[in-house]
Amino acid sequence: MKNTFGSAVSMTIFGESHGPAVGAVLDGLAAGLPVDTAQIAAAMDRRRARGDGLSTSRTEPDEVEILSGLLDGHTTGTPLTFVIRNTNTRSGDYAKTAALLRPGHADYTAFAKYEGFQDARGGGHFSGRITAASVAAGSVCRQVLAGLGIRVYTHIARCAGIDDAPLDYNNLPPEAAPGHFALADPAKEIPMQEAIRAAGAEGDSVGGILETVVTGIPAGVGEPFFDSVESELAHLMFSIPAVKGVEFGAGFAFAGLRGSTANDAFRMEGDRVVTATNRNGGVNGGITNGMPVVFRTVVKPTPSIYKQQDTVDYMAKQNAELTIHGRHDPCIVPRAAVVQDTLTALGILDLWTVRYGTAAQKHGLPQSGR
Amino acid sequence: MKNTFGSAVSMTIFGESHGPAVGAVLDGLAAGLPVDTAQIAAAMDRRRARGDGLSTSRTEPDEVEILSGLLDGHTTGTPLTFVIRNTNTRSGDYAKTAALLRPGHADYTAFAKYEGFQDARGGGHFSGRITAASVAAGSVCRQVLAGLGIRVYTHIARCAGIDDAPLDYNNLPPEAAPGHFALADPAKEIPMQEAIRAAGAEGDSVGGILETVVTGIPAGVGEPFFDSVESELAHLMFSIPAVKGVEFGAGFAFAGLRGSTANDAFRMEGDRVVTATNRNGGVNGGITNGMPVVFRTVVKPTPSIYKQQDTVDYMAKQNAELTIHGRHDPCIVPRAAVVQDTLTALGILDLWTVRYGTAAQKHGLPQSGR
Amino acid sequence: MKNTFGSAVSMTIFGESHGPAVGAVLDGLAAGLPVDTAQIAAAMDRRRARGDGLSTSRTEPDEVEILSGLLDGHTTGTPLTFVIRNTNTRSGDYAKTAALLRPGHADYTAFAKYEGFQDARGGGHFSGRITAASVAAGSVCRQVLAGLGIRVYTHIARCAGIDDAPLDYNNLPPEAAPGHFALADPAKEIPMQEAIRAAGAEGDSVGGILETVVTGIPAGVGEPFFDSVESELAHLMFSIPAVKGVEFGAGFAFAGLRGSTANDAFRMEGDRVVTATNRNGGVNGGITNGMPVVFRTVVKPTPSIYKQQDTVDYMAKQNAELTIHGRHDPCIVPRAAVVQDTLTALGILDLWTVRYGTAAQKHGLPQSGR
Amino acid sequence: MKNTFGSAVSMTIFGESHGPAVGAVLDGLAAGLPVDTAQIAAAMDRRRARGDGLSTSRTEPDEVEILSGLLDGHTTGTPLTFVIRNTNTRSGDYAKTAALLRPGHADYTAFAKYEGFQDARGGGHFSGRITAASVAAGSVCRQVLAGLGIRVYTHIARCAGIDDAPLDYNNLPPEAAPGHFALADPAKEIPMQEAIRAAGAEGDSVGGILETVVTGIPAGVGEPFFDSVESELAHLMFSIPAVKGVEFGAGFAFAGLRGSTANDAFRMEGDRVVTATNRNGGVNGGITNGMPVVFRTVVKPTPSIYKQQDTVDYMAKQNAELTIHGRHDPCIVPRAAVVQDTLTALGILDLWTVRYGTAAQKHGLPQSGR
Repeated sequence: MKNTFGSAVSMTIFGESHGPAVGAVLDGLAAGLPVDTAQIAAAMDRRRARGDGLSTSRTEPDEVEILSGLLDGHTTGTPLTFVIRNTNTRSGDYAKTAALLRPGHADYTAFAKYEGFQDARGGGHFSGRITAASVAAGSVCRQVLAGLGIRVYTHIARCAGIDDAPLDYNNLPPEAAPGHFALADPAKEIPMQEAIRAAGAEGDSVGGILETVVTGIPAGVGEPFFDSVESELAHLMFSIPAVKGVEFGAGFAFAGLRGSTANDAFRMEGDRVVTATNRNGGVNGGITNGMPVVFRTVVKPTPSIYKQQDTVDYMAKQNAELTIHGRHDPCIVPRAAVVQDTLTALGILDLWTVRYGTAAQKHGLPQSGR
Repeated sequence: MKNTFGSAVSMTIFGESHGPAVGAVLDGLAAGLPVDTAQIAAAMDRRRARGDGLSTSRTEPDEVEILSGLLDGHTTGTPLTFVIRNTNTRSGDYAKTAALLRPGHADYTAFAKYEGFQDARGGGHFSGRITAASVAAGSVCRQVLAGLGIRVYTHIARCAGIDDAPLDYNNLPPEAAPGHFALADPAKEIPMQEAIRAAGAEGDSVGGILETVVTGIPAGVGEPFFDSVESELAHLMFSIPAVKGVEFGAGFAFAGLRGSTANDAFRMEGDRVVTATNRNGGVNGGITNGMPVVFRTVVKPTPSIYKQQDTVDYMAKQNAELTIHGRHDPCIVPRAAVVQDTLTALGILDLWTVRYGTAAQKHGLPQSGR
Repeated sequence: MKNTFGSAVSMTIFGESHGPAVGAVLDGLAAGLPVDTAQIAAAMDRRRARGDGLSTSRTEPDEVEILSGLLDGHTTGTPLTFVIRNTNTRSGDYAKTAALLRPGHADYTAFAKYEGFQDARGGGHFSGRITAASVAAGSVCRQVLAGLGIRVYTHIARCAGIDDAPLDYNNLPPEAAPGHFALADPAKEIPMQEAIRAAGAEGDSVGGILETVVTGIPAGVGEPFFDSVESELAHLMFSIPAVKGVEFGAGFAFAGLRGSTANDAFRMEGDRVVTATNRNGGVNGGITNGMPVVFRTVVKPTPSIYKQQDTVDYMAKQNAELTIHGRHDPCIVPRAAVVQDTLTALGILDLWTVRYGTAAQKHGLPQSGR
Repeated sequence: MKNTFGSAVSMTIFGESHGPAVGAVLDGLAAGLPVDTAQIAAAMDRRRARGDGLSTSRTEPDEVEILSGLLDGHTTGTPLTFVIRNTNTRSGDYAKTAALLRPGHADYTAFAKYEGFQDARGGGHFSGRITAASVAAGSVCRQVLAGLGIRVYTHIARCAGIDDAPLDYNNLPPEAAPGHFALADPAKEIPMQEAIRAAGAEGDSVGGILETVVTGIPAGVGEPFFDSVESELAHLMFSIPAVKGVEFGAGFAFAGLRGSTANDAFRMEGDRVVTATNRNGGVNGGITNGMPVVFRTVVKPTPSIYKQQDTVDYMAKQNAELTIHGRHDPCIVPRAAVVQDTLTALGILDLWTVRYGTAAQKHGLPQSGR
């Protein structure tokens, strides 16, 4: 389905970096769910570039227009459409070097797939810009989940070589204040920013690791064989430009563990089954077990760097050298946190709805045993 | 879609470990493609347990019956259906301890989702047994890809703490001989087997890492935003029981790299654009760039171990201790290699067909510029 | 998705007329739903040929083997797989005339699409035989709907030029006894049978009209814009070989009505909104209005007739004449009734589940306002 | 998928009659296809109300803004987004009578489904207004098909009791001039218009029949079992508000034919297989046979009439009488023709692309035998 994802709740995404707009259509929400546009704006603000040496100097207001599906502050039950105009485009930056393929970017693959007809300005459909639309739509999913007692939270687990403190999954931090990094330990913000600026000052870029936690989700959500919780979330995470790995719970560390350590023992906590550890990241057999769902992604260093690089001239079909101008982030990890948050919310709400139905989004779970 | 995956080429999977059969329906193949049933049998053999201290003593012939879609050795263009009977089931092993939730397994989540009506015998739908069906169907996809010049190869990159040698992507090894591990360096087989047997002798289990390489795939395959090569393959890989992480190219190591190192410089190689390194694993912007597609998965240690474990009695709703009997693998990594191979083949063939169409599976790419 | 249909509840169908088997995989049912295999057998019996001059002399026991998803008489929540072996095949009847395209059949289009690799024996994937699988799977959907108070009923509205009496939607007849036609007025059975036999005696065939009614469905089911009740059901009905038209409520007669007559006035019936007439067939704006859903299909005359027909020899690429042998129905309308019944059940259960969720299939609607 | 339809080429639709805009996202086109915006505007003009006693006095310029996917007059290969602002809304007309359910409309079913949160103004998501978006997107599909030699043409076969002349499928008329009805016999326009105005003058409305023909489509397109040509097109046609029936070829008349008449004899025409008649409407076994695809829909009389009607007050839960004001069409058949045209183009292009691939949309069929 290319630019549409989801079974019961789906998102269709569109737009190019330097075209008129980016946007998204969100389908599958019940009618009558309250939507707080201030929370959408806050999510957009978390993704916003600030031109502060940490992110690109292409700063845009990112005002979200809702074209459909909302009336008097509530969903109407029909598709919600979000449009964000592109206002601060300087395509001239790109025209000069269009045939010089930027290493690490989709320039070459776009040529191969779209045969020269792609909108190459600013990365076109491959720009991180397109994630603005997913943030707008996904932040509504996050609000719906909040109404069902489910919270999605993402922090910067590692960035530019600096580790955040481990999260206490039972006691998640509040949302970061506007303009601040999402961290378990706010004291890590300054060192991370300094490391990012140091890389940027060298014309280079850095990557990192984002960790997401979903709390409050009931046991029994997920649709194996193919639509396991891991499959659904990984599918969405790998849609985010620059994400190159996803791991759940202990993740790649499982390769060094023995089963006797890797297994999470079950225990009763009152009437409720819990696990003593959570190395499986809240998912067994592709289905939630009621513990926090925990996963991490790796975000590669921004490919747009200012250092001179070897490349080819696609039109001349010969080797060349490239020095990128334009405006770019030395690190997109902090801005990507809210993208991960909101796409996770889409995935979780989709699987929840497959099990409990659209109508239950508004009415909640029945009392009895579901 | 739960048990069906794929856009242009799709697989529907069914069955339980101790039910009558497991199977799969493969849809979306062109008519007239040759199918070599000996290759299907060879793939099944690679997945087969051997009762040799490395894998479970539940050994089955795994004969694949093809119920539809094949005539005179060629596809008919309608769905291919594969059925593998379950012949060696000893459900008594499970009945004794059905309410004692096995840590690391889907026992509890199946209770939560299916409310006690799940087929719990032998792990039911969550057993690795169900992957036998995907191997049969996926091995046909692998044959179709071979006819298009595309090869899928998976080796055991790490198992039980032992690393294989790095693969030379330009010179992949041949398929492992029957009964042998898929390794770049065959000398690693004995040490791996000894380490697995040592863990098994302690009643414990081990995990590992599988690395898959796809060569010969043209540039331009993959459907961003949502159906990137990474999204499609990760979705499939996370369907494999025990896979808890997927990374492409440099993967999680990207977190420690700078952009100037992470980027793969483009170079001309005759008329062809190549990359000097392949840290992005053959994928830029979600689309193949013509270099080998490279990814790794982590396979957790088999949760079925013979050591006593803390758990709960789900019926009595109280803490309990569990000692598992039955027949289990101390390590499923070697057997999982062919599962990863064949599901990768499904994913790649699906994306290839979205771009070039069903008819081209038989007729190949046109001469001109596609 | 070719051979898979449905959003929340889906069916995948496979098989060829003279291959080993036909079958279907039904996914999306909740766990714990009772399945009465005697009702499946009764549905198969309704579709069965009887070799009595009304239907083909290819009579088969049509025993349904359930390969997965059922345990102790209840669904397990994982896919149900139904396999029906082909036992009475006489492919020799077809081999003689394989290149002589049978008018009205899929012979030529199968050549065009499958390039000669189709399984042409007995019509292959295009045979009415494949509907046996949909009857088995759909009859389980019909049972699930019955548990939710929803009944699906199909009668032969017209066959071989004979009209049945109009149905009283508020007082539907019971199921026809085994071997009998589904009719509002049982006295029409003998005249219909005589008219069919008369056509058959001339080596010719006849068609008819099937009318389906769904009662007990709550208002609010259906997913416009694209997944209206009409769209979903028509999609399924047009999958049935020989169905060439579908109309809801007054259907094509709407072309001769004025709005003042076509509109169904709303009235209160106690606390419930009803319509005074039901010309819209229980659907307004693509969504059920709580009145019986009513639609009709037209089933064309069986294309296999014994009269000599003009055709072409596809291999010789020249005009030819064809006299069909083999065993064929002079009329498939009576046997198609249960196919329509059961595919309707799939469609209705799918849309119901999109709204209320998988879990509600077992637990029913909540008390409150959904 | 609710508001998204299509496998290889898909459309997502959104918007409400009196919300900010209606729109559509079209995905799955190859890059580099020329798009003539004048043809889009012409299609919008064919759907436009003219306030001439034949259609509603709500006349809007219907300017189409393309937000993405188009650059320098060619597709970029990423989603095309079409937005049409709602400019001429007079919601006051509706507020007065919101609780009085309009017979024949979706007012009640929207209440039942959306629980009072629907956007009821002007029919909201159920208004014919939303089809403006599908016309914009579908007219691009029609252009793409034209580039492949495939033409889609719809005429008014019957309206307000007046029949058009039969179409000569081998010699289709040109497109109707702006403001004129699509007719085989232009002399029928005045009588139809008079009959429509006569009904409107009485405060009543009329319906009719639209016939669509697709020429130039190769044999072999269509994906049985479930995605037959008939299933795909009927699914789309029943999405159009007011369509209550769809029939292919002889359609419901098949009920009165014998097989010997219903079958279309095959004949050679040079090297090409053709049929002597076309009672099956160009489709055998769900697959195109190379003859013109022919189908008809019935469009019910506009439910909005000015005569007093019995209804209920949904809030007061009591019987009531309703006299509708506002601006409505006495007949939507002429305006619906282009909706049917363009949704047909979507369906045909989707099935064509499933078979031949996205890339072939630009490069065409290969020389050889596909």
